[in-house]
Amino acid sequence: MTVQGVRSGRQARQVERAKKGGGMGRPYIVRNIPTYDVLSEENLLKVEHAADRILAETGIEFRDDAVALEHWKRAGAKVDGLLVKFEPGMLREILKSAPSEFTQHARNPANSVRIGGKNVVFAPAYGSPFVMDLDRGRRFGTLEDFQNFIRLAQSSPNFHHSGGTICEPTDIPVNKRHLDMVMAHLTLSDRPFMGSVTSEERAEDSIEMGRIAFGSDFVDQNCVILGNVNVNSPLVWDGTMTNALRAYARANQAAVIVPFILGGAMGPVTSAGGIAQSLAETMAGCALTQLERKGAPVIFGNFLSSMSLRSGSPTFGTPEPAIGSMVIGQLARRLGLPLRCSGNFTTSKLPDAQAMMEGTMSMLAAIHCGANFILHSAGFLDGLLSMSYEKFMLDADLCGSLHSYLDGVKIDDDQLAVDAFAEVGPGNHFFGCSHTMAHYETAFWDSDLSDNEPFEKWEAAGSHDAAYRANKLWKKRLAEFEAPSLDAGIAQGLQEFVAAKKAGMGDAWY
Amino acid sequence: MTVQGVRSGRQARQVERAKKGGGMGRPYIVRNIPTYDVLSEENLLKVEHAADRILAETGIEFRDDAVALEHWKRAGAKVDGLLVKFEPGMLREILKSAPSEFTQHARNPANSVRIGGKNVVFAPAYGSPFVMDLDRGRRFGTLEDFQNFIRLAQSSPNFHHSGGTICEPTDIPVNKRHLDMVMAHLTLSDRPFMGSVTSEERAEDSIEMGRIAFGSDFVDQNCVILGNVNVNSPLVWDGTMTNALRAYARANQAAVIVPFILGGAMGPVTSAGGIAQSLAETMAGCALTQLERKGAPVIFGNFLSSMSLRSGSPTFGTPEPAIGSMVIGQLARRLGLPLRCSGNFTTSKLPDAQAMMEGTMSMLAAIHCGANFILHSAGFLDGLLSMSYEKFMLDADLCGSLHSYLDGVKIDDDQLAVDAFAEVGPGNHFFGCSHTMAHYETAFWDSDLSDNEPFEKWEAAGSHDAAYRANKLWKKRLAEFEAPSLDAGIAQGLQEFVAAKKAGMGDAWY
Repeated sequence: MTVQGVRSGRQARQVERAKKGGGMGRPYIVRNIPTYDVLSEENLLKVEHAADRILAETGIEFRDDAVALEHWKRAGAKVDGLLVKFEPGMLREILKSAPSEFTQHARNPANSVRIGGKNVVFAPAYGSPFVMDLDRGRRFGTLEDFQNFIRLAQSSPNFHHSGGTICEPTDIPVNKRHLDMVMAHLTLSDRPFMGSVTSEERAEDSIEMGRIAFGSDFVDQNCVILGNVNVNSPLVWDGTMTNALRAYARANQAAVIVPFILGGAMGPVTSAGGIAQSLAETMAGCALTQLERKGAPVIFGNFLSSMSLRSGSPTFGTPEPAIGSMVIGQLARRLGLPLRCSGNFTTSKLPDAQAMMEGTMSMLAAIHCGANFILHSAGFLDGLLSMSYEKFMLDADLCGSLHSYLDGVKIDDDQLAVDAFAEVGPGNHFFGCSHTMAHYETAFWDSDLSDNEPFEKWEAAGSHDAAYRANKLWKKRLAEFEAPSLDAGIAQGLQEFVAAKKAGMGDAWY
Repeated sequence: MTVQGVRSGRQARQVERAKKGGGMGRPYIVRNIPTYDVLSEENLLKVEHAADRILAETGIEFRDDAVALEHWKRAGAKVDGLLVKFEPGMLREILKSAPSEFTQHARNPANSVRIGGKNVVFAPAYGSPFVMDLDRGRRFGTLEDFQNFIRLAQSSPNFHHSGGTICEPTDIPVNKRHLDMVMAHLTLSDRPFMGSVTSEERAEDSIEMGRIAFGSDFVDQNCVILGNVNVNSPLVWDGTMTNALRAYARANQAAVIVPFILGGAMGPVTSAGGIAQSLAETMAGCALTQLERKGAPVIFGNFLSSMSLRSGSPTFGTPEPAIGSMVIGQLARRLGLPLRCSGNFTTSKLPDAQAMMEGTMSMLAAIHCGANFILHSAGFLDGLLSMSYEKFMLDADLCGSLHSYLDGVKIDDDQLAVDAFAEVGPGNHFFGCSHTMAHYETAFWDSDLSDNEPFEKWEAAGSHDAAYRANKLWKKRLAEFEAPSLDAGIAQGLQEFVAAKKAGMGDAWY
């Protein structure tokens, strides 16, 4: 058997596993390396103390949500108009009821993921109004693009989650998008997914579609959908978001609570200040889920970034947010909450060297900080404004490599190979020795996109760059895509629900 | 004062500092984040035990160096022909005399570097026969290319070291290259540098040129030059390398001891086995320096990689060597030796997305594993075979960002900015607040090459990728280059030495 033959067999099995919905053969990663903890206990306490002071002295405004204000009053916070102030320790006490780890169920049970603890889940990027590819450049995203990205994620073994608003389907009225998006996740993917948060009703529609797919009783007791809600930093929670987060919590589904702090704009220009702010804002949002429904799953989310002092533009994939993420990870673990942090960010407008320098730095930060749910693990270019087909494939490749990275170094007698040295002896190569033969099929991660050939062979094949290869690969994957099977009754139920909802609405475009 | 104005002033000062030889204003980095330790004490002991067994049971061959064999006999090793076996613990005992940290002096004292401990030094890549740029493609390197890369390193504040054989000056006879290379380092740079190791005589010539620049007595008591020697893995030290390493040690200069293990070829296909091998081979080389001259500085070097199971080609920037490097770092610290590990590696033939995905992963491994001397921090493409002008500039930018990364997150009352929240209040922006005004000049690292502009502005400027910008920047830097001043007497001494040596040689081309 040739090495070539073995590899082809391995590839075939990977594709087979991918079709079955496994991620590199597994529904999620259980990390085998520790988190990278950069801050001392003493300094962590200082950050927590600063967050406590922000919460107690400046407080957070809750706008357009009387129920949220009522929750805070009942919980003992000081409510003055829209401004809520929290005594130190109060939010931590409330957060004790939130689970440190939970299962998000997929409609294919083999794809259900554990979120929290040592588990790591990769999901595509979220929220871009634009899409890009090398053939057509930048344009507004459509439902077809949205569906395509779900297909590309589903057909890769390197993801574990179908994500949410992968791009905005701008050809669909704003008030109907969530229906088409959830429908696409439930029909083109059999992995877990996210629902809408742009209004309470859309959140409830998304959850209702989860009930159609999973059954109402099951949904009341199990998480089947996530909703990602943003703080209106600094220190404001607006009603659209709190109404949505309460809808998810009320249904026992998991909200992801994420401040979006561009340092110097929505927060202080110093990392420590942004982290303290983030901790304060996130604790408040997470605690509100517990006041809505004690024990509801919730994810501690974070999004640090920076800005260019030349232009005032936000910057991504820079060193300060990367290191700041490690601190956020430590803080989340001290709260005992599952973590969403960092992802693959860049301001580059092309799938080029800048894109992967910035993307790799920020994605590795997510890995090192111990993030459990890594949203934005693939696709972003253009400072989060565009989903790129080519970048998606490049990032998927990085996600593949991170499976091996998180496996760490296995240490046992067989892996240490002392006997192989005696067999091979000084100066001889290991290529054909029995130890190599026993291990080479599984030894190294193999990229789908990197060119490792000698220069002459690469040149003879056309001197292409990685973006070119990514362009070919996404087209191939889309051409070969087959949707996973879906129970006909569920499919019909979803269609009827969506049709009924749409029939009762006009088209709103804002 | 506008933000633009401040930035320009900051840039000017950085360039000023760079001209003075500082790296982002400092001669080297003192890390303010811990190393990333991935293996438990128990597993580290297993690796050390495996290395001890390899050394005791299989042993290492020392070829073409009778003095080395004599050293080992006197030290109590079992010498049988060329094969040397070591009792467990013997090498560790010998290594106790090696310093855990030392200064490599630069001819500009402000640029001297501390190697070891928490210190991090960035040096350009080393050893490529080819060079590349976007205008002329791949070609054999020349002395002009070699000099250009020294100029580019010297003119960047992001490096701390001038490196060694940045590319092979293939237009110069092999037996004379070292003279021109050391001359270029001593005249075009005022940072520390590396000498030749391709024969004992060339090593001694390199050191002699150091004596001309620094004075013989100074050189006998201080490190002014490094020599990078490779193990002929697996488990062979050849005489060319051991004669060179002994020449450096004898002169009290620092050898860097580096196995070059391509997993599956020169070592086992498993990471743990490659690490155990690396430890064994490096300990033997480091110990030999101490037998030559007790107390001579020496650097524990490492170079793990992997291979493509499809083609048999070496692969770089892959996850297994990245994680393996963290383990190597732990092992080096347990030996109390300064560490050289990982660097910026890729098999890509272009300064593209692949190049920076692989390069960033491997460079961050060097940062995380605690490497003190990071050779190959800039320039490689093509699986180490080519130095790319554009990649050099992109990597230099990454080196700049890693200065901020290694600074970590500063925690104090001012950085935590609690009072700024009280000043700004919920819902308002931080752009003009007093805390921002006090910190924005130094808050964030600013890239020389990344494009952070809005899409429309980037498009209007020509829709260029990062490689294009890197191409413009290296040309600008070369055009603006001014060599640092050099004492006329030293310059003359070096010229006379080189002329006399060359006069006594024919031209050897192999």
